[in-house]
Amino acid sequence: MGEVPPTHPRYASLMARKRLTDAAATGMLAESALIAHGRGEAFDYLLGERTCDAARKAIAEVAARLLSAENPVISVNGNTVALAGPQLLTCAAMLNCPVEVNIYYRTPERMEALLSALELQREEATTLYPEFHQQISLVPILGATPDGRIPNLDGPRANCHADGILSADVILVPLEDGDRCEALVAMGKTVCAIDLNPLSRTAKKATITIVDELTRCLPLLLDDLIDETLIPDENWDNEQNLRQVVSEMLRILDDAA
Amino acid sequence: MGEVPPTHPRYASLMARKRLTDAAATGMLAESALIAHGRGEAFDYLLGERTCDAARKAIAEVAARLLSAENPVISVNGNTVALAGPQLLTCAAMLNCPVEVNIYYRTPERMEALLSALELQREEATTLYPEFHQQISLVPILGATPDGRIPNLDGPRANCHADGILSADVILVPLEDGDRCEALVAMGKTVCAIDLNPLSRTAKKATITIVDELTRCLPLLLDDLIDETLIPDENWDNEQNLRQVVSEMLRILDDAA
Repeated sequence: MGEVPPTHPRYASLMARKRLTDAAATGMLAESALIAHGRGEAFDYLLGERTCDAARKAIAEVAARLLSAENPVISVNGNTVALAGPQLLTCAAMLNCPVEVNIYYRTPERMEALLSALELQREEATTLYPEFHQQISLVPILGATPDGRIPNLDGPRANCHADGILSADVILVPLEDGDRCEALVAMGKTVCAIDLNPLSRTAKKATITIVDELTRCLPLLLDDLIDETLIPDENWDNEQNLRQVVSEMLRILDDAA
Repeated sequence: MGEVPPTHPRYASLMARKRLTDAAATGMLAESALIAHGRGEAFDYLLGERTCDAARKAIAEVAARLLSAENPVISVNGNTVALAGPQLLTCAAMLNCPVEVNIYYRTPERMEALLSALELQREEATTLYPEFHQQISLVPILGATPDGRIPNLDGPRANCHADGILSADVILVPLEDGDRCEALVAMGKTVCAIDLNPLSRTAKKATITIVDELTRCLPLLLDDLIDETLIPDENWDNEQNLRQVVSEMLRILDDAA
């Protein structure tokens, strides 16, 4: 891909694609990661590549849950680190919580690549959000030495840190796999997912689902995290929120045809 | 990915994914190819992963156009060869026409990988369709030495063979780029596209668009090519056909929500 000017109508989408293909080249991603990203692109197309009202509400609710958590944690995988590692480190810095790498296809090489990338991304995070530079430098990055397991989940993706995911009450999990989302909810945790497919198992199983593109919604989430007056809505109806998202997609698809 | 039994509900989708990740490993694909496949997967999900009635009609119309063509040609790219090279060779064998490799990101290495893969796929095609083994062995595979250019198209993707795409009256182009589709239509050619996104420029610009998954629609197309009584419908309304596909997607999305 040649140089793309920031004024290009599809600049954000092309930059996301570039971050992912670069990450694939450095061994950070499983082979199916680019395919998963493409699926997301199609659903984002059906959202008109903008944050819909229902997503805006979910973002505020996720901020409220994270702010009122005892032990929040941010769980990241390859695509997440590639697309928005610095923003997620900043989110963790604001919440004073760890970031934990947890991936579906766990190999020592991929774990090492992701942990190294996150360490390097502290600098990018500090450049983007200099007001949090102190906290960013202190964010614990977990994943290297898991000492716990998520119950009812097979394989290495169940591995986690006792002082990270295992003991968390509220988890922010962008781009999650459906099984793991379900297992975390079954543990009684508040699972805040970010997923572009409103019909996915993750979207349906999570406590709160932000149906929005990761790099577009995180600046909005960071804005909301500054607002310490946000209070969780104990009557949050995730199913209704997802139906609102689908209605928006139906409207856009109908208009485009 | 471990062994997947053919009875798995998502067998076809998982096999398609495996063919593509294998092809990526052998250098057949551009770096954005897996992302494009993922976009297709999402649209196929909205079709319920089945061939809808509108697509069935488009397949028959494409068969009729190919059967009545003077100089048909089948244009293939990386994803096409990876997913359905043998079926497309068989299609060419039945039509007694060439297959021409034409790719967006043309490098000598990728062209070589694709031309070699097609040569090897003659054997797979013969195993699948033994009744055409003689014709399959004779299908000209073009692309190595382009001696013509598609007008009004920049870059190496405009390169083509004078006795292939340049002189064809009817072109079957699965998974085409929008610019090239438009340039081929502007040359007065009948462009038969296969594209899972009914809203894409390719889908909208082509003469006939089959909105269906490549490996699912090709056996149906091959069936139709045996029926030599098919006659082209000169009043084919592609826009209306695409609207029918979108209606089907709207119905499925609405039901799923």
